[in-house]
Amino acid sequence: MKISELGGELALIELIRKYSAGADGLEMGIGDDAALVRCVDRYMIVTTDLLIEQTHFRMDINQPYLLGWKSAAVNISDIAAMGGHPTYTFVSIGLPDVDVSVVEGIYQGMRDVCDKYGSVIAGGDTVSSECGIVINITQIGEVEPENAALRSKAMPGDAIIVTNTLGDSSAGLKLLLGGERVDSDNMAHRELIERHLRPEPRVREARAAVQTGSVHAMMDLSDGLAADLPKLCAASGVGATVYADRLPISDHLRVSASELNAEPYILAAAGGEDYELLITCAEEDAGEVIEVIHATGTAAGVIGKITDGDEIALIASDGLPGPFPRSWEHF
Amino acid sequence: MKISELGGELALIELIRKYSAGADGLEMGIGDDAALVRCVDRYMIVTTDLLIEQTHFRMDINQPYLLGWKSAAVNISDIAAMGGHPTYTFVSIGLPDVDVSVVEGIYQGMRDVCDKYGSVIAGGDTVSSECGIVINITQIGEVEPENAALRSKAMPGDAIIVTNTLGDSSAGLKLLLGGERVDSDNMAHRELIERHLRPEPRVREARAAVQTGSVHAMMDLSDGLAADLPKLCAASGVGATVYADRLPISDHLRVSASELNAEPYILAAAGGEDYELLITCAEEDAGEVIEVIHATGTAAGVIGKITDGDEIALIASDGLPGPFPRSWEHF
Repeated sequence: MKISELGGELALIELIRKYSAGADGLEMGIGDDAALVRCVDRYMIVTTDLLIEQTHFRMDINQPYLLGWKSAAVNISDIAAMGGHPTYTFVSIGLPDVDVSVVEGIYQGMRDVCDKYGSVIAGGDTVSSECGIVINITQIGEVEPENAALRSKAMPGDAIIVTNTLGDSSAGLKLLLGGERVDSDNMAHRELIERHLRPEPRVREARAAVQTGSVHAMMDLSDGLAADLPKLCAASGVGATVYADRLPISDHLRVSASELNAEPYILAAAGGEDYELLITCAEEDAGEVIEVIHATGTAAGVIGKITDGDEIALIASDGLPGPFPRSWEHF
Repeated sequence: MKISELGGELALIELIRKYSAGADGLEMGIGDDAALVRCVDRYMIVTTDLLIEQTHFRMDINQPYLLGWKSAAVNISDIAAMGGHPTYTFVSIGLPDVDVSVVEGIYQGMRDVCDKYGSVIAGGDTVSSECGIVINITQIGEVEPENAALRSKAMPGDAIIVTNTLGDSSAGLKLLLGGERVDSDNMAHRELIERHLRPEPRVREARAAVQTGSVHAMMDLSDGLAADLPKLCAASGVGATVYADRLPISDHLRVSASELNAEPYILAAAGGEDYELLITCAEEDAGEVIEVIHATGTAAGVIGKITDGDEIALIASDGLPGPFPRSWEHF
């Protein structure tokens, strides 16, 4: 059934309302001029992300469910990166006259990632679109003031920690653009594509890290280490040295990289959309931070150190310093 | 200068940061993974609106400044409609490679309406767009629990009040589509076009009304009375009777309607985007509610009453009941 056959905007809102669960602090969700949220004595965190079909995603290499999952996941990842936990998700969606199952798939994906990480779809806007699907998610979260993790608090001498592995998402995208799909028979390829289309926000890992009290600066890696580390360094007024041979590379990426005609460490350093955490803390606290992240079931390790000055250097495996590979630019 | 010549995403964010002011409760605005807002012991209100070029606005009949103003104004209007006041504005913007002055114009318009009504641009997302300008605004506000005004509290016997005049915005849109512009030599036309392109959110009026303690239900008229009154009635489980000759019609609309080949009361009943308030309260309290709204400098009057049942009737000037004219549908 097409959206135009559903019976107008109200029928569409009714359909979407099914994906919105009630929650304790939510006085009024979908169905009024705005949502009403009861406040507690914490910081509220707000983040928002706009995704436009063709520019940011292509439905020919994606699935509605995975699009919905990722749209919400990347916003939840920003909440995690501030040290908080997600509470409410607001979804604006612009829709051409697609099949209703597309809308249901998108919302089911959003609902599932929200359920998994403790958020609730609490409102939004539904409009028609003459230029493909447009999704804007505004994610609200909260954090105790003492656990709020900014980009601007890195200090010279800090260890730089990242979670899990880097570069997989970028390799997955290359595979998708080369014609492979998420149901590929090749297990390594399937895993890499899944890393691109279905990222897991590191909420538990970030919460565990900030609760040690040792985290100085934290952010999530959305544009890739080569783009994001300079942002953290600029905000903190520091430089950084990263060791190429310490970049965490998955076995899947290692076995697939040559088929992709790519260097694993280049993908790990420059590839975007991993949504792993980038954390700095005093060198002597790195062990504890890594340990509590491990306890959540996710790997973490030191990839370099924060330095005086403003230089950001990548030390190659041969020990020679080099510039970071160029990462993706939005404009 | 085109956006592509500006020097990438960071340069664009720097340009936009100028339009974000600091504010007391804003711990961290633009420049981290997300914004951090200190919470108080009130309800937080959240609303969001998505606008897509060609579908919702056309730059050939608009100006960047007015587009920015209206984008923020309609969200602030939703906060007012809940009885609250606006606090923080989050702007997601998708941009083709337009001239930088377009971006500056849009943000100046948003900044000015935010300044006027007490909000602060606190964060957002900037992305490139291959399908025209896309703007999503998420507006945060707050309200004392006792002043929160929902759509669902109308009661049979309530008076129905609207602020100011209706139909002007719809007439203004007709003039724009007919080739007139906001700098028209015809004063009446210019005013109607301005009502369409530069709506004033009724924050002061709504706050004054809810502070009487007499408001039962309230919403803003974004899709037009014929579409919005049924939403309020459905949420409250009531019907309504509206008198056509009580619909408030401006002199500008009256003198321009015949040139537009339109009945003023049809535009007032069915035309959208007036962003006036629709309020219900006990009949005996209507005088007080109207008086406090008048005191803010804005007219208000009773246009009908809430009834038992679910019928929504428009009584024509000849005293005969008729159906509401059909209003605009999003899908």
